[in-house]
Amino acid sequence: MIPTITAFERSPDGGKGLARDTRVRWALEEVGQPYEVRLVSFAGMKAPGHMAIHPFGQIPTYEEGSLCLFETGSIVFHLAERHAGLRDARARAITWMFAALNTVEPPILELTTARIFEADRSWSEERLPLVKDRVRARLDQLSAYLGAAEWLDGAFSAGDLLMVSVLLRLRMSGILDEYQNLAAYVARGEARPAYARAFAAQFAVNAAS
Amino acid sequence: MIPTITAFERSPDGGKGLARDTRVRWALEEVGQPYEVRLVSFAGMKAPGHMAIHPFGQIPTYEEGSLCLFETGSIVFHLAERHAGLRDARARAITWMFAALNTVEPPILELTTARIFEADRSWSEERLPLVKDRVRARLDQLSAYLGAAEWLDGAFSAGDLLMVSVLLRLRMSGILDEYQNLAAYVARGEARPAYARAFAAQFAVNAAS
Repeated sequence: MIPTITAFERSPDGGKGLARDTRVRWALEEVGQPYEVRLVSFAGMKAPGHMAIHPFGQIPTYEEGSLCLFETGSIVFHLAERHAGLRDARARAITWMFAALNTVEPPILELTTARIFEADRSWSEERLPLVKDRVRARLDQLSAYLGAAEWLDGAFSAGDLLMVSVLLRLRMSGILDEYQNLAAYVARGEARPAYARAFAAQFAVNAAS
Repeated sequence: MIPTITAFERSPDGGKGLARDTRVRWALEEVGQPYEVRLVSFAGMKAPGHMAIHPFGQIPTYEEGSLCLFETGSIVFHLAERHAGLRDARARAITWMFAALNTVEPPILELTTARIFEADRSWSEERLPLVKDRVRARLDQLSAYLGAAEWLDGAFSAGDLLMVSVLLRLRMSGILDEYQNLAAYVARGEARPAYARAFAAQFAVNAAS
């Protein structure tokens, strides 16, 4: 059975690969699972039909017969569990999946919020360094942990897939390049053929629209 | 083998049960697994010995023989997978675990940051309503999804355990009580005997110190 995912009809990033469907496309490519995509407009994401699948009105979702999933962590885990292509998501890989999404991503999203949604406030410039330093506090630790290793815990895992996806959101800020080993780690992720296919697929949607 | 978790020697909340070891204690109590606790000071959390177990220098950790885990999501998942007491963490329950930690908790933590770490800034008061409204945007959706149901997806699951734990962090703000069904949902979680045992255990640590 071919699963169907949802993605933005027009991604806010214009195809830079930062929308969350890219993570799921990447995981699908890693495990060699063909998939279909249903594009959703901003209005469509908040319509009852989509909200029935995704209670928070976002993309991506994952439908496979009667199974409907949301949350990229959950979808990537589901794929990792059922396919040999992503190393079995056992306890350590699962730990890094949660670390990517619950420890490293929140300050990065706070930075995005500060730069985009609070940019017009009088205090925005003054607050930005605080937010950036919270991101750096996490990256200091992650960089120290990774050291010269290729991946977080031995072979490439679903934890790396999510961590690289999360770190990619930082590139434009310049902060990622302050950490040579993390920048190289992200580059290793991007160099995977599965990532290239996922990136191209999401880019094609945005190039066409 | 009795697992060992770590907890704050002195919790910043003084025993209100909001430190993250409470989530893990709760899961251990739900599955009936005895455990030991190693208390860690603030300095100890950043010392090399602890950082070797938890790369981000936080509590809780979980040690069981040679297996060392961090991230409450990962620890709760590990317990849910191996014990019948927490319903098997299958795809839907896993989805709600990630939703609790990656979709609902981040704006709640942003509110905590705004109230505690940015309270002394000149723009703090002006910004607070923005942050509160981001929390409400998520709770509106969660409340609509839950409706009159008892738990998020049928029987009580690890997803509920984490969602209730996350929502408890909101109680003092008064925002939780704006949502009658969510307040009742949290109360149902707190009414579970396993939660009561976990709360009492973490409270005892803080009462003693």
